[in-house]
Amino acid sequence: MTEKPPIGAATKLCMSLSGRPGNGGSRLHNRLYELLGLDFLYKSFGTTDLAAAIGGIRALGIRGSAISMPFKEAVIPLLDHIEASASVIESVNTIVNDDGVLTGYNTDFIAVRDLLKAKRIDPATPFVLRGSGGMAKAVAAALRNLGFDHGTIIARNVDTGPALARQYGYDWRADLPEPGAPLLINVTPLGMAGGNGADLAFPESYVAAAEIVFDVVAQPAETPFIKLAREMEKLVISGASVIVLQAVEQFVLYTGVRPDADMVEEAAAFAHGAAAAAEIRAALG
Amino acid sequence: MTEKPPIGAATKLCMSLSGRPGNGGSRLHNRLYELLGLDFLYKSFGTTDLAAAIGGIRALGIRGSAISMPFKEAVIPLLDHIEASASVIESVNTIVNDDGVLTGYNTDFIAVRDLLKAKRIDPATPFVLRGSGGMAKAVAAALRNLGFDHGTIIARNVDTGPALARQYGYDWRADLPEPGAPLLINVTPLGMAGGNGADLAFPESYVAAAEIVFDVVAQPAETPFIKLAREMEKLVISGASVIVLQAVEQFVLYTGVRPDADMVEEAAAFAHGAAAAAEIRAALG
Repeated sequence: MTEKPPIGAATKLCMSLSGRPGNGGSRLHNRLYELLGLDFLYKSFGTTDLAAAIGGIRALGIRGSAISMPFKEAVIPLLDHIEASASVIESVNTIVNDDGVLTGYNTDFIAVRDLLKAKRIDPATPFVLRGSGGMAKAVAAALRNLGFDHGTIIARNVDTGPALARQYGYDWRADLPEPGAPLLINVTPLGMAGGNGADLAFPESYVAAAEIVFDVVAQPAETPFIKLAREMEKLVISGASVIVLQAVEQFVLYTGVRPDADMVEEAAAFAHGAAAAAEIRAALG
Repeated sequence: MTEKPPIGAATKLCMSLSGRPGNGGSRLHNRLYELLGLDFLYKSFGTTDLAAAIGGIRALGIRGSAISMPFKEAVIPLLDHIEASASVIESVNTIVNDDGVLTGYNTDFIAVRDLLKAKRIDPATPFVLRGSGGMAKAVAAALRNLGFDHGTIIARNVDTGPALARQYGYDWRADLPEPGAPLLINVTPLGMAGGNGADLAFPESYVAAAEIVFDVVAQPAETPFIKLAREMEKLVISGASVIVLQAVEQFVLYTGVRPDADMVEEAAAFAHGAAAAAEIRAALG
């Protein structure tokens, strides 16, 4: 473990920008800087003036920034380049600043694609995906990118639901079809801490009939949906692995260094708790 | 010593902005945050786009910023309020951000005035001041503010020299008068490390005839001028005390907390070395 130098002129700042800044990103990135002895620093910010905040990132030479709700689409016209991962879903969650040139990426898309790929799921597998928001777009695009061809988007919203399905060539339904889809994906807040945490994203009969269960909800790391799937010994991808892996992809973009699985596990435990660390360990193999 | 919390959403960022960012400010402020267990962070930045950098400070809620060369005057129209310490010399070296409202201060002026005051020098004492740049303005304004009435500004520059003298009601000369002034003040780079470090700001005969010697050069903490004055047992004010004390005044403006003399001495030793720490200890009594 290399000693991290004291903060000085050479220290690179990375940050996050969101409506309601949290602590997860700061803890994960700063712990990885420590473990790797990198002269970086990470701090979360909120703003009510997106254009001035992005101008400040450019003018101050801030190395990179995570972009969260509600800025993921509004930030696009303020950047110089949009990389494929972001342009495919018209949503930026990461900015990299190379000497004043700002490039937008979407590491949610990258993380979801990599996690699906790592599980070696046959793209012929039919899926049912609940949700039609920004993250649902990232997941649908990743599925399309991997060649998944038989999918149904379930969304009550009769605008965003059909639009998302049409964009990526999947079916749309307002309500769940009969149980039987082998791949179930939840991209709604169902089961999220703070809401009605006992909600099951899919009824038990659907989980019983499935082979693979993917929940994007990361808080708690073990949602009721994930817990049930585990009890039924299904293959599981959790929101905690998505949130950690997308942050690791940001880390690599900012620093050029890829931390090993042990470091990621330790940083994930520090930032998101032991359950999240176990998730990412399982996901990274 | 309170434990400093890990960096998170609540952590306040302070910074410096200059053409050539250094490490002194980061080291001093961050050490004081540690000693006091304050949830603050300090980082130096450079920029080539002052307006966007200031816009970023405002939009990101950065709590405060030191302003160095070459931005001390150009920053004025970008701020909301200019406090008396800055308006009196039309030069801002400190910005405080209160919920998006930016106020400019000049802690060089405050530090010089406080150091002169602490030495209890009779304002009837005649002085000779070498220099006519931005810092000379801060020193001349502080002398005027304290009621010093008999002073001569020495500057080769026939524009800035007479203008500075006229502004604060002092005399101007291009060359040194005869030795004999009891208070000698150097606000030129004479004796600065990196330049011709052996230069004496005033010839030995002037030091011999003086009672008090004030050198604004802070690198090295012991300039040839200060060393000679000390050997001759004169009363001394060093640039190292100015640089530390002005940073402490910034610290108080940003955090609302005044560190005690022991903490300042320790942080000064960490940031600027043992000689600077001894200077500030002597200056603070």
